[in-house]
Amino acid sequence: MQNEFSPALLVLRDPLGSGSGESGSRFDAADPDALVVSALDLGVTRGDGIFETITVVNGMPQALDAHLHRFARSAGMLDLPTPAHETWKKGVFAAVDSRPTVDEAFVKLVYTRGIEGSGIPTGWVYLQQSPDFTAERTEGISVVLLDRGYSSSVQRTSPWLLQGAKTLSYAINKAAAREAQRRGADDVIFVSSDGYLLEGPTATIVLKLDDRFVTPRTESGILPGTTQQSIFEIAAVNGYRTAYEMLTPADLRRAESSWLVSSVRNAAPIREIDGEARPFDAGLTEAINAGLAARTI
Amino acid sequence: MQNEFSPALLVLRDPLGSGSGESGSRFDAADPDALVVSALDLGVTRGDGIFETITVVNGMPQALDAHLHRFARSAGMLDLPTPAHETWKKGVFAAVDSRPTVDEAFVKLVYTRGIEGSGIPTGWVYLQQSPDFTAERTEGISVVLLDRGYSSSVQRTSPWLLQGAKTLSYAINKAAAREAQRRGADDVIFVSSDGYLLEGPTATIVLKLDDRFVTPRTESGILPGTTQQSIFEIAAVNGYRTAYEMLTPADLRRAESSWLVSSVRNAAPIREIDGEARPFDAGLTEAINAGLAARTI
Repeated sequence: MQNEFSPALLVLRDPLGSGSGESGSRFDAADPDALVVSALDLGVTRGDGIFETITVVNGMPQALDAHLHRFARSAGMLDLPTPAHETWKKGVFAAVDSRPTVDEAFVKLVYTRGIEGSGIPTGWVYLQQSPDFTAERTEGISVVLLDRGYSSSVQRTSPWLLQGAKTLSYAINKAAAREAQRRGADDVIFVSSDGYLLEGPTATIVLKLDDRFVTPRTESGILPGTTQQSIFEIAAVNGYRTAYEMLTPADLRRAESSWLVSSVRNAAPIREIDGEARPFDAGLTEAINAGLAARTI
Repeated sequence: MQNEFSPALLVLRDPLGSGSGESGSRFDAADPDALVVSALDLGVTRGDGIFETITVVNGMPQALDAHLHRFARSAGMLDLPTPAHETWKKGVFAAVDSRPTVDEAFVKLVYTRGIEGSGIPTGWVYLQQSPDFTAERTEGISVVLLDRGYSSSVQRTSPWLLQGAKTLSYAINKAAAREAQRRGADDVIFVSSDGYLLEGPTATIVLKLDDRFVTPRTESGILPGTTQQSIFEIAAVNGYRTAYEMLTPADLRRAESSWLVSSVRNAAPIREIDGEARPFDAGLTEAINAGLAARTI
């Protein structure tokens, strides 16, 4: 039933607007295979820009405002012009409305510093159908712990390191994923140089520990997780306590269940850590993923 | 005399070749303002690729083989297909030959992992005239020391952090440069979390210390400097000793002269460190820059 879905690309025109910064901007539909970036765009020459990825379930973009707020927060951390909330929101809906409704699609927002010296950002919205993550969600994933090299205090002491911003400079995250593959694992959990759990290359860690849901504190130099926030809301509605804490690999190993959670794959239970099998609650995982899919905002 | 110079863009076709990997590749001339990157190219969505910048003095690309070797080394560190040395060399000369000879131009090589899932890299060569760096070369630059957050051992212990590779994920380097501007300085010297001098965001540090030329050891997680290597060759010919050492901010502050050296700006003497004036040898700096400009390989 999802065979006819083709990707959609909308390119931001007049990114700085013609007045308030809100009024001038709009998105224009483009061929999804079109070239959109110049050889002088700092987005590609320096990875100098930001992105967000938003899941779209049955035509409904999920946690859209949370993603757009994080998008603006990342822009601030990179000293980029603030992306206009309503413009990008309209862009997301325009992309979604341009295609048939499918069970799961995702939309990616990209916003770069633009052509060097121009001061004019480059931006686009790209919608495509999601891969099938049934196996990851039900059978779980294997992870390895990898050093991220930074102390957990670096976001506070050294903001120019951009930890906690969702930037286009993700080569390290891709290299870590290849290292995981070399070690026969599916994914990575980064650990700080002072021994704290941080996050995955493209996911947040959530543990069920002592019958509570816990996740690393965002001040430790990680991205605030939109999917993790939704899971905490679902958990609280279901009577669970939730907490943000400094967590260690020992906490991960004694957790009743643990997940890497992200916008498109949702909650992927961890079934193996550095080659050692770990338990997870399949029924609880199913309930979490059902709760995520049922979000209406 | 340099008014008529317009940039040149050559785009790599058939990057994986049609046989040996060498025979098929070639570059095609394009409009320098042309869009070259798709919205799905990992070069822009993940900063997943590499680059080199080569200065061209009076039509002569300098240290070209050294740059191409470092290009291939970076590709290896990112598990990218090896860029074919002769193909890229031809691309550089084709770009240079397509434009009038000017005092100083530079050519930038970019090579990305390409469209996600395709396995086919994207690449181009971009030639443009260099800015006038006379003031930086003769009057010097002010720098601030900034924490890079990594230990000096990270390249050995954690190769997935890609320290020492010249990647497109340079958002941190740009953020550090903005932090320097906020502090009223021109440039940055990164310091490791264990207190060693590393490099600038786009330059290598060279000190004249106890009448020797010294630079940080590349094993400390920095890029091997092509311009630094040329300076060491020039220094050795002129009877100076040269050395690679673990250096500290105290070494920098007691140096007789110090420079940030890079391919296009060449040797920029450091006249101020964290707001404190520093001496430098103007005559020696002029001799170094004359030596760099006179390179024939």
